[in-house]
Amino acid sequence: MKVKTQSCVVAGKKTVAVSDQEIEWNNKGTLVQITRGGICGSDLHYYQEGKVGNFTVKAPMILGHEVIGKIVHTDSTELKEGQAVAVNPSKPCGHCKYCLQHEENQCTEMRFFGSAMYFPHVDGGFTRYKVVDTAQCIPFSSNADEKVMAFAEPLAVAIHAAHEAGDLQGKRVFISGVGPIGCLIISAVKTLGAAEIVCADVSSRSLSLAAKMGADTLINPQHDDLALWKAEKGYFDVSFEVSGHPSSITTCLEVTRAKGVMVQVGMGGAVPEFPMMMLIAKEISLKGSFRFTTEFNTAVSWLANNVIDPLPLLSGEYPFTELEQALKFAGDKTQAAKVQLVF
Amino acid sequence: MKVKTQSCVVAGKKTVAVSDQEIEWNNKGTLVQITRGGICGSDLHYYQEGKVGNFTVKAPMILGHEVIGKIVHTDSTELKEGQAVAVNPSKPCGHCKYCLQHEENQCTEMRFFGSAMYFPHVDGGFTRYKVVDTAQCIPFSSNADEKVMAFAEPLAVAIHAAHEAGDLQGKRVFISGVGPIGCLIISAVKTLGAAEIVCADVSSRSLSLAAKMGADTLINPQHDDLALWKAEKGYFDVSFEVSGHPSSITTCLEVTRAKGVMVQVGMGGAVPEFPMMMLIAKEISLKGSFRFTTEFNTAVSWLANNVIDPLPLLSGEYPFTELEQALKFAGDKTQAAKVQLVF
Repeated sequence: MKVKTQSCVVAGKKTVAVSDQEIEWNNKGTLVQITRGGICGSDLHYYQEGKVGNFTVKAPMILGHEVIGKIVHTDSTELKEGQAVAVNPSKPCGHCKYCLQHEENQCTEMRFFGSAMYFPHVDGGFTRYKVVDTAQCIPFSSNADEKVMAFAEPLAVAIHAAHEAGDLQGKRVFISGVGPIGCLIISAVKTLGAAEIVCADVSSRSLSLAAKMGADTLINPQHDDLALWKAEKGYFDVSFEVSGHPSSITTCLEVTRAKGVMVQVGMGGAVPEFPMMMLIAKEISLKGSFRFTTEFNTAVSWLANNVIDPLPLLSGEYPFTELEQALKFAGDKTQAAKVQLVF
Repeated sequence: MKVKTQSCVVAGKKTVAVSDQEIEWNNKGTLVQITRGGICGSDLHYYQEGKVGNFTVKAPMILGHEVIGKIVHTDSTELKEGQAVAVNPSKPCGHCKYCLQHEENQCTEMRFFGSAMYFPHVDGGFTRYKVVDTAQCIPFSSNADEKVMAFAEPLAVAIHAAHEAGDLQGKRVFISGVGPIGCLIISAVKTLGAAEIVCADVSSRSLSLAAKMGADTLINPQHDDLALWKAEKGYFDVSFEVSGHPSSITTCLEVTRAKGVMVQVGMGGAVPEFPMMMLIAKEISLKGSFRFTTEFNTAVSWLANNVIDPLPLLSGEYPFTELEQALKFAGDKTQAAKVQLVF
């Protein structure tokens, strides 16, 4: 069965369009009508620069990996037409050494929505209709707020980062960089038992969102003195670096107590002058965090059950036909945190 | 009671002497007659450069922190005169936040033998007689070989590094840099159950020692292709970086499997161009390892019970009166691994 769709496509730097496309539904997997999707930093990089890190757009690719929708057709005996679902953008191979150890986010043949990592590129979810594996469809109640549920993917990233830190019960937590992911990490660590959450950012707008999301103390490292947090080899049990900035990386190493954990979430280039001696002498555990595994399901559950409220982070919504305007607004960090497209 | 001793003192760069000194024994702690001590990299740095990293020798300081001896007098009711002991060079404060959590190696007021970290400096163990806390005296059988037992301190460093890696049973282990500490890590991980040990070094002399210590495979990264070890996001469950070299740090990140552990033991300056994106994308846990806690006692036990044999690493021994010759020989890495002083 042929299905007509309209898709938000990037073809290179500053080159996006909403294009008519035709897809095929062959009674395998699930045909989803996408209803809403959040714009992520990587979507913005593809738009602004035509690439994310080393992954360059070489052919038109559908953007987006934070989408929800409703089932149109499915091969599932459990899911029904009309069922609201969050779409997990991960499609691991299921048989590589990582998949076999339930480390699917490290799958060596991962197909992840809207990524130019491989060629041909993997199309994303900013399209009206999309066929996905049924396992990628995580159902949620039709009573749930779609604005809220479209936060499932970034919240999954945040919960995964929190899990990387180990047990958070009673812990003192520092979060450096409170864009949408940093702010969702506030929610995640609070839910997982953190006793105290201190957030740092150079943007007062971001810091005010962090306060709404549950931060106990706000720091602007350009103005505030961090000496107290650095005393006795560091105050915090756990730190999350969510900016990718070299100065923030050093700050996290300084304020994390000896034998503490630092989770690196923020991406950037190679770090010049990385202070390895501090990591050694303080025996810090520096852990990379990348995407998520079962945390996607946890995120859907938390959002559907109002365990956390992500709506302070929603800065605007646009019809998908206004793609470029939405990308421009989302890219203006003086105004926008999360921006959603409505399909 | 006054006790005359002779000590190996460093006063600055290339300025060492064997000096007559007088110490006092006041019936508190334990007076030890030092019998033997190993020369460590930091002793060599104090001799060659007058400093270790930022810690500069500002006043004459006794070198050495790898010493064993015999008890002369003690306040202990359990230890007796003549008892052979390994001397733990760590003297933590016992009341800081780290000591209270049994993380004594991170003590904020640590007094560690032969260290210019604080001023006044903490004198080391290269002296004929020394008063230490009785808790610093770890007894061993008089049947044990003193040459072997003088490896207690560096073996403690190695076992601690191995413990930082977590459970090693059945694991594939990579060790980059096989000087004395790297070679002792071979022994430690083998004892703790590692299934396969691959070692890399640019020195064929070091690699041949690694083979004697139990390495399964030897790699010279200047000649050998590492592609096989880098495939599928990395072959090794655990890697130990024991050189401090930036290129070795990158190699360890490359050959460690995604979600694997990398233990950083080798010290050096800040790392230029640290490949943080690889750490994030592969979710590597990079853990600093510094000195040891209870591993000192474990090391004494392993050595006294012939669990491991460190003697392939012993390149020479000198009477302490030939201090400078010993330091020169120990500093010639084309010839020497571990060099011991006899008192």
